[in-house]
Amino acid sequence: MPTYRAPVKDMLYVLNDILHIEKYSKLPTFEDATPDLIAAILKEGAKLCEEVIQPLNQIGDKEGCTRHDDGSVTTPAGFKEAYKLFTEGGWQGLNHTPDYGGQGLPYFMGVAMEEMLVSANLAFAMYPGLTSGTIAILTMQGSDEEKAKWLPNLISGKWAGTMNLTEPHCGTDLGMLRTKAVPQDDGSYKITGTKIFISSGEHDLTENIIHFVLARTPDAPAGTKGISLFIVPKVLVNDDGSLGTRNTVSCGSLEEKMGIHGNATAVLNYEDATGYLFGEEHKGLRGMFVMMNAARLGVAVQGLAISEVATQNAADYARERLQGRSISGVKEADKPADPIIVHPDVRRMLMDARAFNQGARAFALWVGLMVDISRKSPDEDARKHADNLLNLLTPVLKGYLTDGGYRHATAAQQVFGGAGYIVETGMEQFVRDARICQIYEGTNGIQALDLVGRKLPMEGGLPIRTYLELMEHFFSENADEPYAEFIDPLKTAVGDLQKAVLWFAQNGPANPDNAGAGSVAFLYLLGTVALGHMWAKMAITSSKLLDAGAEDKDFHQNKLITARYFIHRNLPDTAMYLRKIEAGAEDVMALDAGAF
Amino acid sequence: MPTYRAPVKDMLYVLNDILHIEKYSKLPTFEDATPDLIAAILKEGAKLCEEVIQPLNQIGDKEGCTRHDDGSVTTPAGFKEAYKLFTEGGWQGLNHTPDYGGQGLPYFMGVAMEEMLVSANLAFAMYPGLTSGTIAILTMQGSDEEKAKWLPNLISGKWAGTMNLTEPHCGTDLGMLRTKAVPQDDGSYKITGTKIFISSGEHDLTENIIHFVLARTPDAPAGTKGISLFIVPKVLVNDDGSLGTRNTVSCGSLEEKMGIHGNATAVLNYEDATGYLFGEEHKGLRGMFVMMNAARLGVAVQGLAISEVATQNAADYARERLQGRSISGVKEADKPADPIIVHPDVRRMLMDARAFNQGARAFALWVGLMVDISRKSPDEDARKHADNLLNLLTPVLKGYLTDGGYRHATAAQQVFGGAGYIVETGMEQFVRDARICQIYEGTNGIQALDLVGRKLPMEGGLPIRTYLELMEHFFSENADEPYAEFIDPLKTAVGDLQKAVLWFAQNGPANPDNAGAGSVAFLYLLGTVALGHMWAKMAITSSKLLDAGAEDKDFHQNKLITARYFIHRNLPDTAMYLRKIEAGAEDVMALDAGAF
Repeated sequence: MPTYRAPVKDMLYVLNDILHIEKYSKLPTFEDATPDLIAAILKEGAKLCEEVIQPLNQIGDKEGCTRHDDGSVTTPAGFKEAYKLFTEGGWQGLNHTPDYGGQGLPYFMGVAMEEMLVSANLAFAMYPGLTSGTIAILTMQGSDEEKAKWLPNLISGKWAGTMNLTEPHCGTDLGMLRTKAVPQDDGSYKITGTKIFISSGEHDLTENIIHFVLARTPDAPAGTKGISLFIVPKVLVNDDGSLGTRNTVSCGSLEEKMGIHGNATAVLNYEDATGYLFGEEHKGLRGMFVMMNAARLGVAVQGLAISEVATQNAADYARERLQGRSISGVKEADKPADPIIVHPDVRRMLMDARAFNQGARAFALWVGLMVDISRKSPDEDARKHADNLLNLLTPVLKGYLTDGGYRHATAAQQVFGGAGYIVETGMEQFVRDARICQIYEGTNGIQALDLVGRKLPMEGGLPIRTYLELMEHFFSENADEPYAEFIDPLKTAVGDLQKAVLWFAQNGPANPDNAGAGSVAFLYLLGTVALGHMWAKMAITSSKLLDAGAEDKDFHQNKLITARYFIHRNLPDTAMYLRKIEAGAEDVMALDAGAF
Repeated sequence: MPTYRAPVKDMLYVLNDILHIEKYSKLPTFEDATPDLIAAILKEGAKLCEEVIQPLNQIGDKEGCTRHDDGSVTTPAGFKEAYKLFTEGGWQGLNHTPDYGGQGLPYFMGVAMEEMLVSANLAFAMYPGLTSGTIAILTMQGSDEEKAKWLPNLISGKWAGTMNLTEPHCGTDLGMLRTKAVPQDDGSYKITGTKIFISSGEHDLTENIIHFVLARTPDAPAGTKGISLFIVPKVLVNDDGSLGTRNTVSCGSLEEKMGIHGNATAVLNYEDATGYLFGEEHKGLRGMFVMMNAARLGVAVQGLAISEVATQNAADYARERLQGRSISGVKEADKPADPIIVHPDVRRMLMDARAFNQGARAFALWVGLMVDISRKSPDEDARKHADNLLNLLTPVLKGYLTDGGYRHATAAQQVFGGAGYIVETGMEQFVRDARICQIYEGTNGIQALDLVGRKLPMEGGLPIRTYLELMEHFFSENADEPYAEFIDPLKTAVGDLQKAVLWFAQNGPANPDNAGAGSVAFLYLLGTVALGHMWAKMAITSSKLLDAGAEDKDFHQNKLITARYFIHRNLPDTAMYLRKIEAGAEDVMALDAGAF
C-alpha cells in the first residue's frame, strides 16, 4: 500500500528562500502570514493529508461512487468522515475571503495545500477543489447579495460547488452548447438540458451543491456570444437561508472511468430547474474563464502532486527491493542482491522525477504568488506585471506539469517491475488517476493552442516580452563567475525560446497552421525553460546559503546535485523542441484526412 | 466501441516491395510461401481477428477471468469458442514445424499474425502466444522423444503452454529462485515451490497446460548456474498419449491487474508436482533464453499492435468529431464545426503514430525475416550475419516498440478528449493493456542494459559493426541524387549512433555506470535510426514504384508523406539521445540513496 510524506520542508524552502514571501508582507492577506504561521499551517495540513485522506485513496479507487435508483450518490467509505474533518479544520476556506468566513491566507497557500491533498487522494481533493472554483468566481464577480447568499456555506464547506460546461456534442467548443434558460416572472430562469462529465456532480458529502451552469437564453446569438452563466442549487434556498425544496436537477448516471473512481463524474439532467443569472446575460464565458484559469493552475498542481507521491513510493521500493548486482561491483555483499537503487537506469528515472517535482513545485508556487500579486497588489504596475506572467504561464503550467505527472507516475510504476502492474501496490492507480489531468480543464493540446494562438500575440507580445525581460534581469543579477555553470545553459535555452518566438512571428501570420503544428513543442520549450529558471534560482540560492554556513548542509547539497542533473540532462532538450517547431506545418498537414 | 481493420495491404507492401521475400524462396519453409499464398493467409487471419477475436476485447476486459474454489479458472465469455475457431483454422501451428502438424510457414508470418491478433485482443492473444514459446523451445532443443510427446498437441492448440520464471522475491534476478526439484527413482522429479505472474497460467481453453518451470535440484550451485528447466504438465500424460491423473500444480489465486484482464495471471503452487528435466541439469537458463528471445520479439509486436488499433480509432474519431474551427479558416461551413482532424496538433499526434506504426511494422517484419535466415539458411555466413543483427536488435525492438505502443495509445486516447477517459469508448483499455508490454519479458530498462552491457561488447563489437556496415551498404546503394533527401538525414543519425558507440567504448570500461546511465537513451537512439532506415527504404522504394508507374499512386504518395514526416520531425531526435548519453553517470549517481 502506498505511503505519503508531505514535502513541507521543500515547500518552506521555496516560499522562504526562493520566493522570499516575507518581502510581500504589506500585501493584503499577507500581513499575518508570517513564516512561522505558514510552517505551522502546512504541517497541520500535511498531517490531515497523510493520516486521514491518503489512507482512503485505494479504497476510493476500489469502491468508487454508487448511484442509487433515486439519483442520489454515495461516496466511498470514509470520504464523508474525512470531509467532515477537512471542513471542521477550516481548510475549505484556507485562502478565501475572511469577509465570508475564510481564513484569508494568500493564494499560494492554497497551491501548497492542493499539492498535499492531491498527493494523498485526487478523487477526494476534487470535491473541495470544485467548490473553490465556485468560491473564486463568486468572490471576484458576484454582487454583495450573491456573495452573502452563497459564499458563507461554500467557504465553510457546508455546501459544495460544481462547474457545468460540457454537453455530449460539445466539450472544447462551448459555442455549440444547447442547454436552455427561460426567464420567469420572478427574475429566475428555468434551466433545461443535459450536462456531462460533471466532476463532483452529485454526492453525499454536503447538504447542498451549487451548480454553475452555462446555458442559452431564448433568442441568444449563436456561438459563444450567446452563452450565459447561471447558479442552479441542488436544493433551493429560502430567503432566510434555510433549505427549501429539491430543485429539478438530477444525476442521470455516473461515468465509468479509467481512474478517479472516488469522484462522482455525473451526467446531470436539468428539467425546468430553477436557476439564477450570474453576471450579465450573454457574457457567461467571461465568468467561467475566471473559474477555469484558477482551475488550470489547480490541475497543474495535481500533475505535480501525483508525480511526487508516486516518486516517493518508487524511491522507497528501489531502496528495499533486492535484485541483481551493481554493474560497477557488488554494493551490499551481506545481502543476496543489491537494492535496485544501485542501477543507473533506476536512478535516472528517480532523478528525472525528482528534478521535475522540485522544479515544478517552485514553478507552481511562484505562479501562485503571481495570482496574489495580480489580485491584491496596490501597485498597478506590479499587478499588470503579474497578469502578464499569469497569462503566459497558466497554459504552460497546466500542460507541462500534467504531462510530467503522467510520465513520472508511469516511470515510478516501472521501477516496481511486474509488481507495479498489480492493483495491490497502488502504483497503477497513480497512472490512471494522473491521466485525467492531461484531459480536463482543456486538453493539453488546447493549452498549447491557447499559448501560441492567444497568449503569444496578446497585446503585441507583452506577456512573452515580460517573461524574456525577467530572464535578462535574472541573468544580470547573477552574472558572478561561480554561477556561470547554472546561468550559461539557461541562457542557451532562453536563446532557443527567443528563436521559437521569432519563428512563430515570421511564419505564423502567413500560415496559422505553423503555429498549431509547433504549439505543443513550444509549450514544452517554455516549460523546460521555466523549470531551468527555477533550478538556476535554487542552485544559486543554495550555493549562497552553503557559503554562509547554512545548517542543513545535506539539503542544500542535494539541491545542487538535482539542479546539475536537470541542467545537464533535461534543460538542453529545448534545442529539440525548437527544431520541431521550425519543422513547420507542411509535413503535418500533407496527408489527406481520409488517408489516416 | 473500438473497431479494427487489419493492415494487410501494408504488411504485403513490406514483405513484397521492401523485404522482397521472393528472393528467399530457396530457404526451407519459404518454398511454398508464394506472394499469393501469403496474401491469402493474411487475409484469412485478418478476418478471424476482425470478426471473431476483436469483438471479445472489451468483454474480456470487463469480465476478466474467474478463479473458482477448486482452483479452476474460467476465461471471459466467448474466449473458448474463439479459441476453438483459432485452433481449428490451424493458426497455432502457422509457422511451426510440419513434422509435428504445423503449417511450416516462415517465422515472419507468425510476426504478422501476432500483430493482428494483438490489435484485436491482447489478453486473448497471450494464450496462443505462450504456447508458441513452449513450441519454440521444444522444437529447437527437445529430443525426438520429447518432441513426439509434447509437440503435436501444442502445435494443434489442443494443449497450451506457459513459462514459469518469477517468484515473489525474484523477477529479473533469476539466480535467487528457490523452487526445488527432487529426483525420483523413475527419472522424474518432484517440483515444489511458488511461481507468480504466470500469464495464461490456468484456464479452460484446453484440456491440458504444459508448464516450463525453472527450479533447483538438490545441491545445485547457487545463482543462475544452479537452475534447471522442467516440463510440468497440469495433467499427467500416459505412455499412450492419453491423459492421466491431475498433477499437483494448482492455481492459488489470480492477480488483479491494471489491464489484460482477459488473461489469467496466476500464482501457481507446485506441491511435489511431477516434472521432467528438459535439457541438461543446471543449464536451464540456456533453454529459457531461447523462449525469452522469441517472446521479446512477440512482445515488441504487441506494442506496435496496440498502437496501430488505437491510432485507427483515433483517426476515425478525429474525422467524425465536430469541434471548433480550423485556425487557417473554416473548412466545412455546412457543419456546426470542423472535424477535429483539421487541427494541426491532432494531426501531429496521428502522424507521429502513423510514422511509428508503419516504420515499426517494417522493422519487426525485417527482424522476423532475420529469425528465418538465422534458423534456416544453408549459408553459414548468412546465418551468422542474421544472428548478429538479431542479437543487437531484439532488445531494441522490445524496448522501442513497447514504449512507443504505450505512448501512442495514450496519444490516441488524448484525441478523444474527455470521452477517451470513459471506459465505454475502449481507448483507456488500450493504454492499460499496452502498459504491460513495457514490463514483462524483462522491463525495458533491462532491455537497454542487455543492449549496452552485453550486446555492444559482444564478440568485440561484432553485432553493432554488422549493423553499421549494413547502413554503409545502404548508403552506397542509394547514392543517387534524388534520394539524398532521405539518405542525408539518416547519415547524420547514423553518425550520432557511431559517436555514442565510441563514447561507450571510451567511457564504459573505466566506469560501467556510464553505460547504465545512457542505456535507455542508446536504445532510443538505435530504435530511431532503425525506423529511419525503414522509412528511407520505403521512401526510395515508393519513389521508384511511382516513377515506374505503379498502380496505387495514393498509397505510395502517402508513404512519401509519412517518410518525410518521420525524417524531418523524429529522426533528428538522435542528437538529443546522444547528448544524454554523453552527459554520463556522474549526475545520475551523485545523490545518496537515502536522500531520494
